[in-house]
Amino acid sequence: MMLTYMPDLVGYIAAALTTASFLPQAILTIKTRNTESLSLGMYSAFTLGVLLWLVYGIQKQDYAIIMANLITFVLSGSILCYKIYNTIKAKKKKP
Amino acid sequence: MMLTYMPDLVGYIAAALTTASFLPQAILTIKTRNTESLSLGMYSAFTLGVLLWLVYGIQKQDYAIIMANLITFVLSGSILCYKIYNTIKAKKKKP
Repeated sequence: MMLTYMPDLVGYIAAALTTASFLPQAILTIKTRNTESLSLGMYSAFTLGVLLWLVYGIQKQDYAIIMANLITFVLSGSILCYKIYNTIKAKKKKP
Repeated sequence: MMLTYMPDLVGYIAAALTTASFLPQAILTIKTRNTESLSLGMYSAFTLGVLLWLVYGIQKQDYAIIMANLITFVLSGSILCYKIYNTIKAKKKKP
């Protein structure tokens, strides 16, 4: 397999895919405002984790880590905001 | 901030959070079987991306990257399977 000889290329494609993957989810969430099957625990832990990756990238002055996690943080953070908003709204409805 | 002096600790906590975050999502998806607000595009791109991270880790013989992405691949792959199953089922219902 050609990819065996190009570990860095594999890393770049991997980073691009895992970063870009949150775009269709963010678009779907913003469009439908439906967050029923999204896990609040996942998006809380994931967004905090990505924020720490960002801190790590800044400390190491690694611009690839900074850029990838900055984009993911904005996307994942937006999804988390919708989930929190819907969770609070749903709790208010129930007496 | 104390974290400023420990970039590696920040990296480990970040990796643990972004990996573990898929556990509550996988549990929620398996329990409710509801994948309505999950994006097929996200889980397809993300699972493929994580698989490439795994290949990258194997090439670089970096066990931290291998372990983190192996766990995430199993969790994210399970969620993707449910999403694909539900998508096919929903398409069959519509004439």
